[in-house]
Amino acid sequence: MDMEQGCKTAHGWAARDASGHLSPYSFSARIQGDADVTIKVLFCGICHTDLHVIKNEWGNAMYPVVPGHEVVGVVTDVGHGVTKFKAGDTVGVGYFVDSCRTCESCSTGHENYCPDLVLTSNGVDHHHHGATTKGGFSDVLVVSQDFVVRVPESLPLDGAAPLLCAGVTVYSPMAQYALNEPGKHLGVVGLGGLGHMAVKFAKAFGMTVTVISSSPGKRDEALGRLGADAFLVSHDAAQMKAAAATLDGIIDTVSAGHQIVPLLALLKPMGQMVVVGAPSTPLELPAYAIITGGKRVAGNGVGSVADCQAMLDFAGEHGVTADIEVVQMDYVNTAIERLEKNDVRYRFVIDVAGSKMEETVA
Amino acid sequence: MDMEQGCKTAHGWAARDASGHLSPYSFSARIQGDADVTIKVLFCGICHTDLHVIKNEWGNAMYPVVPGHEVVGVVTDVGHGVTKFKAGDTVGVGYFVDSCRTCESCSTGHENYCPDLVLTSNGVDHHHHGATTKGGFSDVLVVSQDFVVRVPESLPLDGAAPLLCAGVTVYSPMAQYALNEPGKHLGVVGLGGLGHMAVKFAKAFGMTVTVISSSPGKRDEALGRLGADAFLVSHDAAQMKAAAATLDGIIDTVSAGHQIVPLLALLKPMGQMVVVGAPSTPLELPAYAIITGGKRVAGNGVGSVADCQAMLDFAGEHGVTADIEVVQMDYVNTAIERLEKNDVRYRFVIDVAGSKMEETVA
Repeated sequence: MDMEQGCKTAHGWAARDASGHLSPYSFSARIQGDADVTIKVLFCGICHTDLHVIKNEWGNAMYPVVPGHEVVGVVTDVGHGVTKFKAGDTVGVGYFVDSCRTCESCSTGHENYCPDLVLTSNGVDHHHHGATTKGGFSDVLVVSQDFVVRVPESLPLDGAAPLLCAGVTVYSPMAQYALNEPGKHLGVVGLGGLGHMAVKFAKAFGMTVTVISSSPGKRDEALGRLGADAFLVSHDAAQMKAAAATLDGIIDTVSAGHQIVPLLALLKPMGQMVVVGAPSTPLELPAYAIITGGKRVAGNGVGSVADCQAMLDFAGEHGVTADIEVVQMDYVNTAIERLEKNDVRYRFVIDVAGSKMEETVA
Repeated sequence: MDMEQGCKTAHGWAARDASGHLSPYSFSARIQGDADVTIKVLFCGICHTDLHVIKNEWGNAMYPVVPGHEVVGVVTDVGHGVTKFKAGDTVGVGYFVDSCRTCESCSTGHENYCPDLVLTSNGVDHHHHGATTKGGFSDVLVVSQDFVVRVPESLPLDGAAPLLCAGVTVYSPMAQYALNEPGKHLGVVGLGGLGHMAVKFAKAFGMTVTVISSSPGKRDEALGRLGADAFLVSHDAAQMKAAAATLDGIIDTVSAGHQIVPLLALLKPMGQMVVVGAPSTPLELPAYAIITGGKRVAGNGVGSVADCQAMLDFAGEHGVTADIEVVQMDYVNTAIERLEKNDVRYRFVIDVAGSKMEETVA
């Protein structure tokens, strides 16, 4: 059985160099161990992180890189020791597929902060001879059952894929910092893949939501289809001043350099800002802006497996999914070009199972 | 009775202009109301804030300014409605003497973040016709009983005075962020008035304490008399790297510009930094430094009245006091010059009751 699995060929798309250009790439999927689940990939979202990695913008690309960490698929086989899943189950895989399982973070249910986290794509798999992990831009994934989550039946599978990273990245800190309580007022800064998920979760929690954006053109979208309660243009000083000290919390999803002092001024005393976007230049944080009012700024990196499951269960109950544009695999290079220009509302999702994976496009 | 109180003359020392030079100044203490306590000031600490205000460095001085908000004294009289204190009680007054009592912060026991906080010195007293408050560099204070705390009998009164601001400023966030538990590891950045109190409280809590300082010369003092467990020179990259990811929390007391990225690297995942020093230049906070590890940076401004009482009770039980240099009032201008040069270990305390308050010095 294991021998057969060992011979299984995966068909993916990979970047071979810092051009980031993706093309078909076949490789051997790793052997399914006793505690592993083999997953046929159905859909995979495209995240900004994929873009950074394939172009080696973080200097850590191990080519060929098969991107993808917002995976929804169906279980096709399980190891003898697997108790949580069976063939036919609809499951998800997020930003990581393993961790050290022994450190303080792992021991306390925060394995997303394990220093030896095994990323789903372009990761180093300490548990499998240091192999480089291949992500969800491929037709098969083999993952430890402990890092697989169940996708509720009520969710459309394409719209659910971005929940596995974008969704949990905003849901997890909202839960952690009690920014998930009806009646509280949340600010969401930036309306992209992460921001639009934060708005949807906040509304599902029964919160009041203000979107803060540098683009006045996003007002209608924010207040209309996404259901936000208010919209502030971040460079409109009068608007911002009128909203001072009204927010219980802020989820800041902006990945371009920006000023946070005007955002901190929107927080009530003891309000919590959570940074989930990663500008390349440091944020400027004057001490007075947080000492006055005892305000807080926290960073957040995705969420634990338990957070991810809780998020999916909540999304299933409340019908929360990402707004997506579904594309075929042979469109991926164009999709990534458009993603670089923020030309997508709000997430590309690749229909992996519906794509021709092996044929090279012109 | 109220008439007599109304005629009571207070003898203080005030700054008259931005030179910050202090000299004797007599004024009418405010009339003792039904809920007020009249306090004979015994000791008053000198805080950096006093220095900033008397020199109008924050642009908000309302001269003449009588500084002082680390007050220990004895109750001499109480209003008819006072239930908490009686003549003869030893009490303290800290950074503020009143608040709006109705806002969300006041309603939830965090009145230190009330936007209409009435500061003890150079404050605007909304409850008393907008009068400018006069602080503890004077022989009498009249304060609402709700903003007066009890000083445990076991504490020396001079060494207790700095607890009222420096003490509660570090104790309050330690309690708020669970950085007060035996076995946890706290970093204290900067060893001055605030820092030395943080070390003492942390040791009294049963914590492991690492002092981080730019001054190698403070090692002996930190490890010796103050009882810290380790000492890091902040610009020694090797020392800092060896201590990476070891701290549960950091209290950053430094009021000069400094880099916080090397400090954040000392925190364990999900570790909490608390900023209580206020550099005039913004702190540089790269998003990656907090997203990786889900770390947190919070500001803290003093503490609530309840925090202050809890801090004093704890200090009384564990014999925690400030290291002080007691001076007479006529030394105050020299003391402030020395404070500007950090030439004090660690707090000046004025022996108000033992000083000649009315005589002008040459």
